[in-house]
Amino acid sequence: MNLAAAARCATRGLPRPTFRQQRPVVQLVRCASTKVFFPNEPSAPSVKTQIPGPESQHLLKELSAHFDTSNVNMLTNFQESVGNYIVDADGNCLLDVFAQIASIPLGYNNPKLLESVAKKESHSALVNRPAMGSFPQHDWLPILKEGLLAAAPSGLDKIYTSMSGSDANEMAYKAAFMWKRQQQRGSATSFTAEELESCMENKEPGCPNMSIMSFKKGFHGRLFGSLSTTRSKAIHKLDIPAFNWPAAPFPSLKYPLEEHAKENRDEEARCLAETERLILEHPSPPAAIVVEPIQSEGGDNHATKWFFQQLRDLTKKHDILLIVDEVQTGVGATGKFWAHEHWDLQTPPDIVTFSKKAQAAGFYYANPALQPSASYRQFNTWMGDPARALLFRDIYRQIQDLGLVQHTADVGQYLYNGLKRLQEAYPNEITNLRGKDQGTFIAFDSPQRDELLKQAKALGVNLGGSGVNSVRLRPMLVFQQHHANILLETLDKILRQ
Amino acid sequence: MNLAAAARCATRGLPRPTFRQQRPVVQLVRCASTKVFFPNEPSAPSVKTQIPGPESQHLLKELSAHFDTSNVNMLTNFQESVGNYIVDADGNCLLDVFAQIASIPLGYNNPKLLESVAKKESHSALVNRPAMGSFPQHDWLPILKEGLLAAAPSGLDKIYTSMSGSDANEMAYKAAFMWKRQQQRGSATSFTAEELESCMENKEPGCPNMSIMSFKKGFHGRLFGSLSTTRSKAIHKLDIPAFNWPAAPFPSLKYPLEEHAKENRDEEARCLAETERLILEHPSPPAAIVVEPIQSEGGDNHATKWFFQQLRDLTKKHDILLIVDEVQTGVGATGKFWAHEHWDLQTPPDIVTFSKKAQAAGFYYANPALQPSASYRQFNTWMGDPARALLFRDIYRQIQDLGLVQHTADVGQYLYNGLKRLQEAYPNEITNLRGKDQGTFIAFDSPQRDELLKQAKALGVNLGGSGVNSVRLRPMLVFQQHHANILLETLDKILRQ
Repeated sequence: MNLAAAARCATRGLPRPTFRQQRPVVQLVRCASTKVFFPNEPSAPSVKTQIPGPESQHLLKELSAHFDTSNVNMLTNFQESVGNYIVDADGNCLLDVFAQIASIPLGYNNPKLLESVAKKESHSALVNRPAMGSFPQHDWLPILKEGLLAAAPSGLDKIYTSMSGSDANEMAYKAAFMWKRQQQRGSATSFTAEELESCMENKEPGCPNMSIMSFKKGFHGRLFGSLSTTRSKAIHKLDIPAFNWPAAPFPSLKYPLEEHAKENRDEEARCLAETERLILEHPSPPAAIVVEPIQSEGGDNHATKWFFQQLRDLTKKHDILLIVDEVQTGVGATGKFWAHEHWDLQTPPDIVTFSKKAQAAGFYYANPALQPSASYRQFNTWMGDPARALLFRDIYRQIQDLGLVQHTADVGQYLYNGLKRLQEAYPNEITNLRGKDQGTFIAFDSPQRDELLKQAKALGVNLGGSGVNSVRLRPMLVFQQHHANILLETLDKILRQ
Repeated sequence: MNLAAAARCATRGLPRPTFRQQRPVVQLVRCASTKVFFPNEPSAPSVKTQIPGPESQHLLKELSAHFDTSNVNMLTNFQESVGNYIVDADGNCLLDVFAQIASIPLGYNNPKLLESVAKKESHSALVNRPAMGSFPQHDWLPILKEGLLAAAPSGLDKIYTSMSGSDANEMAYKAAFMWKRQQQRGSATSFTAEELESCMENKEPGCPNMSIMSFKKGFHGRLFGSLSTTRSKAIHKLDIPAFNWPAAPFPSLKYPLEEHAKENRDEEARCLAETERLILEHPSPPAAIVVEPIQSEGGDNHATKWFFQQLRDLTKKHDILLIVDEVQTGVGATGKFWAHEHWDLQTPPDIVTFSKKAQAAGFYYANPALQPSASYRQFNTWMGDPARALLFRDIYRQIQDLGLVQHTADVGQYLYNGLKRLQEAYPNEITNLRGKDQGTFIAFDSPQRDELLKQAKALGVNLGGSGVNSVRLRPMLVFQQHHANILLETLDKILRQ
């Protein structure tokens, strides 16, 4: 049974082995589906040394003379890594449920993607990197149409490409500022002498006192504009000058959401009221609000679709843009291609930004007024990376061909149910389980989170944290039930001690 | 005679045909050296249609429904482009003296670079893109050592990699801010409660009132922090909020520099005095000064080595960093690998940023104190692009193997002399010729600059502008005398009319 068959099977509601049924698992059964997708994927992790092992320690010490290694988690042998398994410099092979901070879409050394980058057009894109705003390649439209535009959120048919998630957000912010100032100017397309002069001194009115509103605990990147909207952790922001922009409270909800519907609604209403107050009263009026569908770096904080619907209405009411930052949530991980599809909005967001699993980056939009009135305003040398746009085209094809969005919804449900049972078994160790019906975009809190992550690694499972004490699961779209079983067994083993 | 031989020949002072000797040129002679380097490179431009031609117009119209085409110069067929020649969607073939805004190092479809990106390690780097700060590849150090570190400016042995020039500058700015605040804190490595709380509100002292000083007419990128230091043109800055950071005057020198030595020295002294005054008095004290060796977007403005030596002394005196932005000047174009090598500094700059022709991007430094005191402060998901670091390794090899830096110095001298003769012949049409002894990094002013660019394009030469009325020459490192001849002949033809 290949992966597509597995996905179809799952949607037909055929019986699937549950986590409980498989316990206790001594030797995990290798599924046939894995074999088809990644012929060389291991059946289980194998840890031979402490991590980091002697070879990693040696190499890290040498590297640290020239490259900052203070952030290193694992020195990685990517050529040896395969599918859901990451291999380190000592040959330790771990199940990877972090996936390069949620940015590997379809497994290490995915054969079809290796085919994709071996094509002449990929080689040409690398060697002949265009200044794409000025010299786009002649077949740029079909590349977009078969890839990035084919995957566009419903209702958004235009795109700016960029280099990274931070960059995508900043381009979106610039679009919002230029749009709002143009709107304030009315139909005039020319700038006043005062604007032209003052902007050269970084002063009003040329550089306006306007803002992008974000939410507390939100993360939108680390460049100076995006960092001004990032409110995740002090360590992300300390010592870096920032704009005086407003931060609205993001709902602090209780999980499971549906069991606390009334108080959660009250909390969301409170946050929305404060958001509106800030729109009206903040000294730096917002041109846009930026929000993540699920606050990721800030600790996997969820809100209900009602909250986002109301937020959309607020932005319409006050004529500011809604920018949805799907850098981490986009491209299938939540069981929808775009996480904001869960919201059932009546009108699409004004802008949706993306990166990470897309490998390419940029923002989608529909309103032509989000293109500046004059040329060379929304511009930079590279304006994205055609090599990554080509790669995304084949990522998208594979997601569609294998039904990986629905697959991820199904595996996510399975994983969530397994974690729910673990939470019942260890109510003090696993709390605030969240991400129900959100694909594999699942998290929980753990009082000794860092110790848990460390022990998981020693047992061959690479996990990521977020917020203060959250474990965030960020597997790839090729994560399957037997991988979920390994994760669940490992957590069980750790918590049993 | 291949390119290396040509370079050697040039340095031996063998007689070379001068521009004057070759005029009038009816049919340009094709040099053997071109044949060796780019077997398929045309001997001359060929323009068949208006530019944009019918096919380009058709494709642009379709593209504009989904992608902002307001900045498009030429819809490019990169697969058909070769060496110094760029081909558009209508099959027009132009000598490219702009090179994707100075960012193509070694010609379109360079055979050795095509070999480089066809290697398995390149494919792996693309498909298995790491979160490089956390999961660097196990062989990252040798890749750096044979490439980016081998090319490092003298005295700078450490590197942060990034995605683009803007990004490189912003990472450098962050390094400067964290370094300066750490210095102010003394040996303490912990932050105060007030710092931790205030930074979450984008306020002092956590987000300090500090600045990066830049120079008027400078260009350092278009993200919010880098744009705050960019002072090139209003159209780059209008409607985008900016930090209240100081801008010092950049010398307005007279060319040729050596013929106006006295008044140029006075002008530079004036600018340095004002720079020092701003360091001492600006309400937002600088942690660093950022400067381009030659202000590029702002109109190819030069200063003397004395100015830069004095500037270095000023930064030392006031204990702030000197960041040299070599995004456009770096990688050989000025006849040195790094343009600041022309300055003969006694101590290297604190930071040198790079991108464009390097294809990779980032910043070099030496002082370990420029690494933050805690992890995850100088950090983002991708932290650069190993695929481009690999590509740079082979760019660097080829530059070394073929002696392309010295070659560019020689061809630049030839080109400058030819332009000087043109200036003598058309003193009202070509003014302020500059870039003597700066490789091919040459510019001049022209009262009808835009018309000149347009006519050159119609005659098969793609040129770029900068500043208000400057023509900036930004050929690749494989630009040779016979290419220079075509450029000179074309300018002569236009100006004769």
